[in-house]
Amino acid sequence: MTQPQLKKVEITSAFWKRYRELVVKEVLPYQWDVMNDQADIKIAEDPQNNGQDKNSHAVANLKIAAGEMKGHHYGFPFQDTDVYKWLEAAAYSFSYHPNPDLKKITDNLVDLIAKAQEPDGYLSTFFQIDAPERKFKRLQQSHELYTMGHYIEAGVAYYQATGSEKALTIAKKMADCIDAHFGLSEGKIPGYDGHPEIELALSRLYEVTHEQKYLDLAHYFLNQRGQNPDFFEKQNEADGIDRDLIPGMRDFPRNYYQAAEPIKDQQTADGHAVRVVYLCTGMAYVARLTGDQDLLAACHRFWNDIVKRRMYITGNIGSTTTGEAFTYDYDLPNDTMYGETCASVGMSFFARQMLNIEAKGEYGDILEKELFNGALSGMSLDGKHFFYVNPLEADPAATKGNPGKSHVLTHRADWFGCACCPANLARLITSVDHYLYSVHDDTILSHQFIANEASFADDVTITQENNFPWAGDIHYTIANPHTRSFKLGLRIPGWSAGNFAVQVNGQAEDVAVTDGFVYFAIDAAATTIDLKLDMSVQFMRSNNRVRADVGQVAIQRGPLVYAAEQADNEAPLWLYRIDRNAKTESHYEADLLKGVTVVEAAAHREPEDPADADLYTSAAEKPAQDTQLTLIPYYAWANREDGQMQVWCRRG
Amino acid sequence: MTQPQLKKVEITSAFWKRYRELVVKEVLPYQWDVMNDQADIKIAEDPQNNGQDKNSHAVANLKIAAGEMKGHHYGFPFQDTDVYKWLEAAAYSFSYHPNPDLKKITDNLVDLIAKAQEPDGYLSTFFQIDAPERKFKRLQQSHELYTMGHYIEAGVAYYQATGSEKALTIAKKMADCIDAHFGLSEGKIPGYDGHPEIELALSRLYEVTHEQKYLDLAHYFLNQRGQNPDFFEKQNEADGIDRDLIPGMRDFPRNYYQAAEPIKDQQTADGHAVRVVYLCTGMAYVARLTGDQDLLAACHRFWNDIVKRRMYITGNIGSTTTGEAFTYDYDLPNDTMYGETCASVGMSFFARQMLNIEAKGEYGDILEKELFNGALSGMSLDGKHFFYVNPLEADPAATKGNPGKSHVLTHRADWFGCACCPANLARLITSVDHYLYSVHDDTILSHQFIANEASFADDVTITQENNFPWAGDIHYTIANPHTRSFKLGLRIPGWSAGNFAVQVNGQAEDVAVTDGFVYFAIDAAATTIDLKLDMSVQFMRSNNRVRADVGQVAIQRGPLVYAAEQADNEAPLWLYRIDRNAKTESHYEADLLKGVTVVEAAAHREPEDPADADLYTSAAEKPAQDTQLTLIPYYAWANREDGQMQVWCRRG
Repeated sequence: MTQPQLKKVEITSAFWKRYRELVVKEVLPYQWDVMNDQADIKIAEDPQNNGQDKNSHAVANLKIAAGEMKGHHYGFPFQDTDVYKWLEAAAYSFSYHPNPDLKKITDNLVDLIAKAQEPDGYLSTFFQIDAPERKFKRLQQSHELYTMGHYIEAGVAYYQATGSEKALTIAKKMADCIDAHFGLSEGKIPGYDGHPEIELALSRLYEVTHEQKYLDLAHYFLNQRGQNPDFFEKQNEADGIDRDLIPGMRDFPRNYYQAAEPIKDQQTADGHAVRVVYLCTGMAYVARLTGDQDLLAACHRFWNDIVKRRMYITGNIGSTTTGEAFTYDYDLPNDTMYGETCASVGMSFFARQMLNIEAKGEYGDILEKELFNGALSGMSLDGKHFFYVNPLEADPAATKGNPGKSHVLTHRADWFGCACCPANLARLITSVDHYLYSVHDDTILSHQFIANEASFADDVTITQENNFPWAGDIHYTIANPHTRSFKLGLRIPGWSAGNFAVQVNGQAEDVAVTDGFVYFAIDAAATTIDLKLDMSVQFMRSNNRVRADVGQVAIQRGPLVYAAEQADNEAPLWLYRIDRNAKTESHYEADLLKGVTVVEAAAHREPEDPADADLYTSAAEKPAQDTQLTLIPYYAWANREDGQMQVWCRRG
Repeated sequence: MTQPQLKKVEITSAFWKRYRELVVKEVLPYQWDVMNDQADIKIAEDPQNNGQDKNSHAVANLKIAAGEMKGHHYGFPFQDTDVYKWLEAAAYSFSYHPNPDLKKITDNLVDLIAKAQEPDGYLSTFFQIDAPERKFKRLQQSHELYTMGHYIEAGVAYYQATGSEKALTIAKKMADCIDAHFGLSEGKIPGYDGHPEIELALSRLYEVTHEQKYLDLAHYFLNQRGQNPDFFEKQNEADGIDRDLIPGMRDFPRNYYQAAEPIKDQQTADGHAVRVVYLCTGMAYVARLTGDQDLLAACHRFWNDIVKRRMYITGNIGSTTTGEAFTYDYDLPNDTMYGETCASVGMSFFARQMLNIEAKGEYGDILEKELFNGALSGMSLDGKHFFYVNPLEADPAATKGNPGKSHVLTHRADWFGCACCPANLARLITSVDHYLYSVHDDTILSHQFIANEASFADDVTITQENNFPWAGDIHYTIANPHTRSFKLGLRIPGWSAGNFAVQVNGQAEDVAVTDGFVYFAIDAAATTIDLKLDMSVQFMRSNNRVRADVGQVAIQRGPLVYAAEQADNEAPLWLYRIDRNAKTESHYEADLLKGVTVVEAAAHREPEDPADADLYTSAAEKPAQDTQLTLIPYYAWANREDGQMQVWCRRG
């Protein structure tokens, strides 16, 4: 076989199975209740609250649009997307957890969506219910294509999961509607949405329908973006400048929307972080499907800017709450940052698409970083509480007392006025089986150490067994009954690049690392490969151009970044210091935080000064005492009592 | 004599004479031009800009109110106060720099103000010109009493400087107008201004007129504040809730205005920092003049909260730009802080008033800290550029690139939309002679080392000679020709408490320090006292409850806090480390920054990582190299090329 076609991946990883079952048993029912206004919850009083004080109303909006209910639209103009992302998450879950009760709900939901859709394919309940005369007239803020893009993703997923032609038809009708309205020909709108998403959605629709017009439309949106940088302003003026759909959005600069100049001219990843990574995902899709080298170059440029200069060690992105945005190179404050869950989810999308283009281990490294840290942190271990903002340093006193940190919650919320994150993370978790392999020509890349059994064409199966992320022994069994010839590339993670070992069929083998992968020619009927990764505790530091992290260490073990919490340590946490040669000990605790490997590091800690001591003194600090700092994986923080947390710790 | 009455102080300090002449030669003419819309300036684009793009219009507003011009009011409702603070500054300058040309201008200005004043004494040009029906109807935002309070201060000062009864009469008419409208009796407004100021102004008016009703009115405002915590909300509702005078002000919590509860119940210094210290100044005035022990207790409570838990080492206060406000105990971030110049000026007022009540060196320490650091930093060495915000760490890249730091300018601005600070600092500088002595019963306290010649009753003179703040040798000559008996208290600064020496008439003497002062019984006709203060470079640290400063040192020499600037050191500055036992060297450079003592400290500096290096690595940092860190006094920063600055430096 030249192109070893991937047929199915079954996740066997205990770590991920717990999360995936949690989504089925807790997250999806919980979110369905919230969207149907049947949950007894408290909306987070964060800056995105939008004055909401009750449930989501998202399903009711669809019912009103479908004529099944009377009333007004409630929530953000993009409230529909909560439902679509939830539907997409549910669709993926059927692949590992068939669920007739849930299927009945989702089938009915698809019926409702079809009923809510207008004959021409348009669907955005806010505009249908409360502002039909303003359709496509204020794209800076309307999120109409973003909203329909999320349905298109859900519809494609639902079709793939269940074979529902109805779900796919809704998506195609939406895409046709958009195609009818947007473009450079006479009478069409020469514009694009303020929030990228439609580009990646249309690419997915193209991949399942092979309809060239959908790919062309995605390509159009990418090429057109920023060609007419005053497009939004002109639309706003024509629509009535003061009639904002979302207060304050008009004041953001053009690069907040990645609309200041054509993508191909944009040198840095600027603006709203989620918009950037959704755009990048669309760019990578279209670059791969069209071969557009300018788009690919932009993908590389944005990737490097984010990963080399604008990403937290946990994979989180977005250094400021103002516009939930990137700021500037190496500006990575830990306590005023944003690090939106959706941005880490989107970064996972981008990394996956880049892996589909190129066999570079770096993409797998970042994907892994997001999956095990920055994205996963967005949900509590019980599946019912969520972070929008993921800080690397938090203090309840600061959240309460300093307005510049009021967006940094120290415990996850029941729900949000802008509830983009919970269902976004749910769909990532239920589809994580899509993130483990990429196939290039005759090469299968296995770039994640999430235990699984994967079936390929010609009865090839790859079984990966491990106890990751707690242990680094990765055992592959490759069954190739028809002795086809193909290559298998295994990723050597950046954190293990200096220390790993390989055995093929039980024999140690020296293998060269090429762009982060080691390659094996497979032609035998049965092959085993054992990969031993370095799970020692590592003291990480940042490039010292990062002001916020200078003189500090972070602790990493395998793919997991660790955090110190007040639940395990004495506050204030900033009095701890760790020598980078400090002795560490790690052990698995099955009963802690659903089972985690805890790291204990020898540390020093100054005694806290008395409250009545002088605020400033020339006296020397009191001698530090030897002690231990206990750390838990970052993703698991804030699942116990409220308290301080920090990822970076002073060195010394 | 039992009460040695202070008659006149002449500043002879070269350091302060330069500033005081600068105010006469540059600051006052410059500000007069700005207020008359005749300066070619650029208004800072800071968050307080208020959309202003031209000069101040402040004098024009008065002319319109006086009927000399047609037009609308321009600027903030408190725009008049720029003129009044300028007039007050000019009044003080006459005591050391008689100036007939300026006097002509100020006399004409007083005439104009008198003409603008309404027959009943009311004067607030915004309301007179554009909203006469709303007088006293929205005190949360109107600043009417704040505005008139500033005139009262100016009028008292002008009367004292020039004998102008006209200037005093305007002030009395204003106070009478306010007295007629405010109070608890039937038909009066049972309220107070959103911005404290009138309390201290009325106290000053009482001190010069001895009219009890003015003191009673000041006392009323202090007692009434917060007794009816919904007072502002009720007024806003009656006035029309949406008709804000200053957008956003309605959203601040009640404690922003110190109106959440009665002052006597308030435990912490909360809200807008300038409001707090103006209020405290009024409290201290009235506590002294009335003996109100509850007010005095509140003064102590607020003082301790500010000085022990909420003040930067430079004396700056206000930890957040949101509301230019205090946050919570020990929350002193250096790079997102506010530290408004006006707040340091106001803290000087408060300290001075506390010195008038009690002989505690701590008040003199803080006054000195403000005069030589936090307040003085507000003006450039050329007298034509000003800081509103005084950060302890600044980086032009952060100001430009991170919205959470956009309020932190790294070079002083020509002028501000809200131009409260420039003239406030000018009036502090021209009146600094009022800040050197306090007299308690038979004791003269000399609490500042600003060289001067002071004349007291009975022909007593005290001459203080020194080269402060560069040298710590303070020479006093006390002439007491009638050999009266009195005590002289000299402050031993906190920074020299552990190391000072005293000679009386050339003989070393052991003296005990009582609450920060050493006391001498003076009865001879001639006495000399030599005080030798410790001018060695000191490595300061903060109480380690301050998260932002942990593991860092600041350098202080005498009263001056030092700062490292990119102009003298290699960026990024955060790569420097200083051992707290590091060797230091200091020397005076006459040609640098109008003459400063520079401190050189032995330091270590890691080489900067390459831009293309990994953002995170487990590799050890590169060995630091031995180098030097050059520091200049904090007040003098940002007078050269734009660049990074930091007060705190990593220890190690």
